[in-house]
Amino acid sequence: MDARKRIQGIIHQTPILTSSTLNSMCQAEVFLKCEQFQRMGAYKMRGASHALSMLSEQQLNRGVVTHSSGNFAQALALAAKIKGVQAVIVMPENAPKVKVDAVKGYGAKIVTSGNSPTDREQKVKAIIEETGMTFIHPSNDLNVILGNSTCAQELIEEVPSLDVIIAPVGGGGLLAGTALAAHYMSPGAVVWAAEPEQADDAFRSLQSGKIEINAKANTIADGLRTHLGDINFPIIHQLVQRVLLVSEAEILDAMWWVWERMKTIIEPSSAVAVAAVLRYKEDMKGKRVGVIISGGNADIPELVKLRLNSDD
Amino acid sequence: MDARKRIQGIIHQTPILTSSTLNSMCQAEVFLKCEQFQRMGAYKMRGASHALSMLSEQQLNRGVVTHSSGNFAQALALAAKIKGVQAVIVMPENAPKVKVDAVKGYGAKIVTSGNSPTDREQKVKAIIEETGMTFIHPSNDLNVILGNSTCAQELIEEVPSLDVIIAPVGGGGLLAGTALAAHYMSPGAVVWAAEPEQADDAFRSLQSGKIEINAKANTIADGLRTHLGDINFPIIHQLVQRVLLVSEAEILDAMWWVWERMKTIIEPSSAVAVAAVLRYKEDMKGKRVGVIISGGNADIPELVKLRLNSDD
Repeated sequence: MDARKRIQGIIHQTPILTSSTLNSMCQAEVFLKCEQFQRMGAYKMRGASHALSMLSEQQLNRGVVTHSSGNFAQALALAAKIKGVQAVIVMPENAPKVKVDAVKGYGAKIVTSGNSPTDREQKVKAIIEETGMTFIHPSNDLNVILGNSTCAQELIEEVPSLDVIIAPVGGGGLLAGTALAAHYMSPGAVVWAAEPEQADDAFRSLQSGKIEINAKANTIADGLRTHLGDINFPIIHQLVQRVLLVSEAEILDAMWWVWERMKTIIEPSSAVAVAAVLRYKEDMKGKRVGVIISGGNADIPELVKLRLNSDD
Repeated sequence: MDARKRIQGIIHQTPILTSSTLNSMCQAEVFLKCEQFQRMGAYKMRGASHALSMLSEQQLNRGVVTHSSGNFAQALALAAKIKGVQAVIVMPENAPKVKVDAVKGYGAKIVTSGNSPTDREQKVKAIIEETGMTFIHPSNDLNVILGNSTCAQELIEEVPSLDVIIAPVGGGGLLAGTALAAHYMSPGAVVWAAEPEQADDAFRSLQSGKIEINAKANTIADGLRTHLGDINFPIIHQLVQRVLLVSEAEILDAMWWVWERMKTIIEPSSAVAVAAVLRYKEDMKGKRVGVIISGGNADIPELVKLRLNSDD
């Protein structure tokens, strides 16, 4: 059974939005695949649900654990709740209270760790040893990738003959899934990634041929501060043609434009892909461009404040 | 030829959004017909386009005029631009600069009037006498009403067996169109209006059987401060069963909930209908409820400020 069948009924088929203004701004046909309308507000629900659907009865009985302070925390919590499975989410001490509350709201147990990657990995290891829970990585897990892939599958089925498909890249789980779907279902399309200049590890990884790390990642696109993993990097290296870099100002402008003009809330990580379409519009010209809008879990007041300050 | 055929290709068929959280909050099935995704961001595009489609060649050559500081100004400006027709919009001196700029952006000519209804009507009269332009009223015009009606027509076709259809009421043009569509296409459904307590003229008009006026209309739902007209009132009086009143706090809460949870920007006037579903949820229980979301032209920073202050 393929991933789409396995998660049918759990995830939403999300709408695809277009804007004639956006089209004329870049003289292209742009199709936004809107995962902000997905359950819990992001594509992560697809990967989390699919990973759970692949576990054995015994594994499900023992429960699942992940580390995430972002959308995957909520996704795994909700997917586990739907399946009646126990979930433990390891979150850093500095995780925003709203995110902690959202995860709690879905009934998952939260374990706090230190703020470094080593801290959280040690904490996860201890939990696995103690409970026998199955660890599900937010992005570097093939079943998560195959689940995420269903988003591009829906896009490709609904919008034929795409020339380009653009997805934002952070941990690489969405991009790898998008590239696989395009490879099998829309071989005429190239897949490009969109990434903040301030966290350009994927850009450098494609150049060097090995996984590069961000020494710092000072970007408002909080979902894209992480780096690629050993499972998704080979897929991305093989199937993604190009990484489009954008500045912080471009991300904020694109986000604001979508909020105001297209009347939908997208998070900064998703705005990175829209910003790429606008910045590299010469490369979009005359093409049919699919863009994966990864989610809409944005701190609206905080981003409005940033926006107003940026106008000064 | 019916209104839908006449404006096909000019207006968008807008998506219908649902939320399982909203459904469980009121134990009903709620379907939001999302006119914030309509061209220029509101259902007004439907009425304006249809009214223009009914004019003679000679009338089109002379151009059209209306008075509006809100969405109808933009709608008529854009509809006229598409048809290559001259449009003059009479706007009050105190109209927000963003709205004036939006109308200018669509190429319409703006004439400024004093802020009172009498001021603007005199100005319109003078323009008609001077130019022979055709006046199109934003809400009290049968062709505008028939155009607006296409929104409920789409909703009814896509969502069968609705029990209730709710539309916000201001000038009455949307509500009358909605009631007519329901009468002909979904006779099993009742039509309810949603209105701010602070501008409850329609509520009082249905009680008294004549058009009532708001002495003041101190509501954030800026599209609903006006009163009914002699063309739409008889339709509303006959076909609308009930007016659901909501408070300013309920409007703001509902708007914010939709922004944050459903990831779409709706304007305060549209939030009035969502607020009505939530406040009168006992009456929604077990029903299939269609809600017309009239538009998404919101001043986001201003409303965020109001929202944050209301939390104090």
